Amino acid sequence: MIRVTVWNEGRHEKSHAEVAKVYPNGIHNAIAEGLKEAGFTVRTATLDDPEHGLTPEVLADTDVLTWWGHMAHGEVKDEIVERVYKRVMEGMGLIVLHSGHFSKIFKKLMGTTSDLKWREADENERLWIVEPGHPVAEGLPECIDLPKEEMYGEFFDIPAPNALVMVSWFKGGEVFRSGCCYHRGQGRVFYFRPGHETYPTYYNPLIRKVIANAVKWAAPVHGPKIIFGNVKPLEKLG
Amino acid sequence: MIRVTVWNEGRHEKSHAEVAKVYPNGIHNAIAEGLKEAGFTVRTATLDDPEHGLTPEVLADTDVLTWWGHMAHGEVKDEIVERVYKRVMEGMGLIVLHSGHFSKIFKKLMGTTSDLKWREADENERLWIVEPGHPVAEGLPECIDLPKEEMYGEFFDIPAPNALVMVSWFKGGEVFRSGCCYHRGQGRVFYFRPGHETYPTYYNPLIRKVIANAVKWAAPVHGPKIIFGNVKPLEKLG
Amino acid sequence: MIRVTVWNEGRHEKSHAEVAKVYPNGIHNAIAEGLKEAGFTVRTATLDDPEHGLTPEVLADTDVLTWWGHMAHGEVKDEIVERVYKRVMEGMGLIVLHSGHFSKIFKKLMGTTSDLKWREADENERLWIVEPGHPVAEGLPECIDLPKEEMYGEFFDIPAPNALVMVSWFKGGEVFRSGCCYHRGQGRVFYFRPGHETYPTYYNPLIRKVIANAVKWAAPVHGPKIIFGNVKPLEKLG
Amino acid sequence: MIRVTVWNEGRHEKSHAEVAKVYPNGIHNAIAEGLKEAGFTVRTATLDDPEHGLTPEVLADTDVLTWWGHMAHGEVKDEIVERVYKRVMEGMGLIVLHSGHFSKIFKKLMGTTSDLKWREADENERLWIVEPGHPVAEGLPECIDLPKEEMYGEFFDIPAPNALVMVSWFKGGEVFRSGCCYHRGQGRVFYFRPGHETYPTYYNPLIRKVIANAVKWAAPVHGPKIIFGNVKPLEKLG
Repeated sequence: MIRVTVWNEGRHEKSHAEVAKVYPNGIHNAIAEGLKEAGFTVRTATLDDPEHGLTPEVLADTDVLTWWGHMAHGEVKDEIVERVYKRVMEGMGLIVLHSGHFSKIFKKLMGTTSDLKWREADENERLWIVEPGHPVAEGLPECIDLPKEEMYGEFFDIPAPNALVMVSWFKGGEVFRSGCCYHRGQGRVFYFRPGHETYPTYYNPLIRKVIANAVKWAAPVHGPKIIFGNVKPLEKLG
Repeated sequence: MIRVTVWNEGRHEKSHAEVAKVYPNGIHNAIAEGLKEAGFTVRTATLDDPEHGLTPEVLADTDVLTWWGHMAHGEVKDEIVERVYKRVMEGMGLIVLHSGHFSKIFKKLMGTTSDLKWREADENERLWIVEPGHPVAEGLPECIDLPKEEMYGEFFDIPAPNALVMVSWFKGGEVFRSGCCYHRGQGRVFYFRPGHETYPTYYNPLIRKVIANAVKWAAPVHGPKIIFGNVKPLEKLG
Repeated sequence: MIRVTVWNEGRHEKSHAEVAKVYPNGIHNAIAEGLKEAGFTVRTATLDDPEHGLTPEVLADTDVLTWWGHMAHGEVKDEIVERVYKRVMEGMGLIVLHSGHFSKIFKKLMGTTSDLKWREADENERLWIVEPGHPVAEGLPECIDLPKEEMYGEFFDIPAPNALVMVSWFKGGEVFRSGCCYHRGQGRVFYFRPGHETYPTYYNPLIRKVIANAVKWAAPVHGPKIIFGNVKPLEKLG
Repeated sequence: MIRVTVWNEGRHEKSHAEVAKVYPNGIHNAIAEGLKEAGFTVRTATLDDPEHGLTPEVLADTDVLTWWGHMAHGEVKDEIVERVYKRVMEGMGLIVLHSGHFSKIFKKLMGTTSDLKWREADENERLWIVEPGHPVAEGLPECIDLPKEEMYGEFFDIPAPNALVMVSWFKGGEVFRSGCCYHRGQGRVFYFRPGHETYPTYYNPLIRKVIANAVKWAAPVHGPKIIFGNVKPLEKLG
């Protein structure tokens, strides 16, 4: 049973009435609900919890962490970022959602600015599958239509993903690499674009399916125990 | 339950006593045995079966096909190659083993010559894991030692794999990209280097583990049903 | 001085008045004109030339070949396809344009069906640069607007490119990976989407710039002379 | 004319007599000498220069920066690392050499620990070219033999490179991805393994050729001027 921790900044829901209306229990609980339905063991954690809810114990008990943040990236403590990073290096999966592209942990894992174009204009988005044989595409249609979303446009300053699974079309004329798979250390990272706080995106069954697929894909593999540092030769030298 | 068809040319075992001694039931049965132990539903097929054992019915009932061939690549009928190719395009997994690098199906899927250096000198091979978070590395040690194998050396004329999971070291001074993952169409392809017919490589538990991992990884994903050809606009034009 | 051979099927221009009107000297001469302006040594060749204009001598004297074909892919002789393929394996660059996605040579190099969605509806296309540090992006704006083009839509059945440089947006709601770089053998291949025969796309200075950049990028590198086959050990065995 | 800045920590040469003997003018001057011979405009800079020799003016005047460091990675000021990083994002090339794998700038650009195995045992290394059509392989033989080098072994904790050009074989039984190309932001990064301070590696003409090739490959492309942030729609909405 894959153990998922759904992390949410959780501030918009407190400060913006329109967000609270869409996500009365917080974005995290909408995401967690979808993951529970998919059969995972799910807990939630938010910025305002002690240690942001990401204690060493919680992370040790987490196979895959999902991350939503936006207005308070700067308040996430460096020490906690480092803790999450170490767990990814060891094999924990990480699903970074929407405005999480500017989170400290995502920028640290990418090694780029992760900057982009954006616009809030209630326009529609279509996410096209461009790697239909990838596990993240399991059970999906050829494209997912979202009637209203924030626009994110290229150039998205990320390293080319190890696998590009989805590309978004926006009514206003832009495209975006919106489903991006990475290997980092022994862990796997998936960036998934949709999910602006004023739209009910995380209730959408297809969006939930993508996140559930990504969790399965990113779950730890339990590969070799790695030895780093000084080693003896395996063959006779000289 | 993943359904595997283990395909083997099956000629060396008939014509070469030393190979028959190592693989008295054929290379296919040694591979099949390992896959059965791993819990898959397994059948075998060989070159000399009618339609090489790869009828439309067999392929329709196959999630992942493994392929070993060497001295009779040219005898594999183009029609059967085309049939296997179409199934890969639709999502069937394909595991190409050792000298299968020169099979018609592998060359067709790669788009390159898949040529390489080789030497038979009873030297040892070490397969190092270079992507430990990849599903093909599950449960493996950092490196697999094979006391005697045929050498394959770079340049190996393949497209850079979507994921490079293993690199081999050979006593005689060469290296080789020996565990290579590809997406082709909706299917996934894994090339795995070891397995010369005169060595008991396919009885090695770690080699069997790699093949079992590759089968799991390459099993069909059941992604979107793809529409090709002429389509209507999804948005109003003009 | 990079030597380019511009290959064109050259049939639409003869049989369709509207195409002849746009390209009175043939698509090849419009492409060649742009490449000459960019300073390359350019010749042209067409399907109806002896040996399709691609004699061993011409190919031996070609650093980069550009390929436009559409209605007569089936008439290209397998022997000539094989000849071009061998030159790519040896290091010749190949730029495949628009409907060339269904050419024998492109399918052979990709190992996939290279199928896609399409529509002729005079809609606009925007090509967005998604890898701005790539040589193919040199001197380009962030996106190229084409007021009217044929639509090509995903899923485009190609292997994920080694570098994805451009993604297209279409008015009707689709996206497409429209600038795709590949290594095959010792050669490099660039697929570039635009260029339907009824539109003046190959007169567009930015489209010409992309093709010129691609020619520079795909020009042969003169790397190591590769030895294939049986080799002696470089180190003492046993 | 490509402008190269050769950066060196420059401490081993001062503190270790055996290193000073091999590189009496410092590792930087040995590298610079090779690059001057290749026709580049070259300057050098070291850790103990003011601002480590990497003032805004120097970086603005640098197309490609090469980086050698080992015992004093921690002394490189974060402010200078940030300055170099910004220039890479804007398009400056970066060549990271040998023990530079543990430099702050390389770890920041990779998003991983960049840890590895190592051993100092005077063993020989063979660097095999695995992407012979890549510009970094221009003019090289199939493999480069170094009679004595430090060993670096897998797992090397880096993201899979955009192009893997070289893989090393070591006498003691290990392999290593030793020539790795990355796109980061609008810049390009090349990691090149050899160059332990006690061996005359940077006088080797083939090693110099690799570094010169890498400099050419990593030189800025002058692609599109990128706009980030809030943008207006390009198409009429609603």
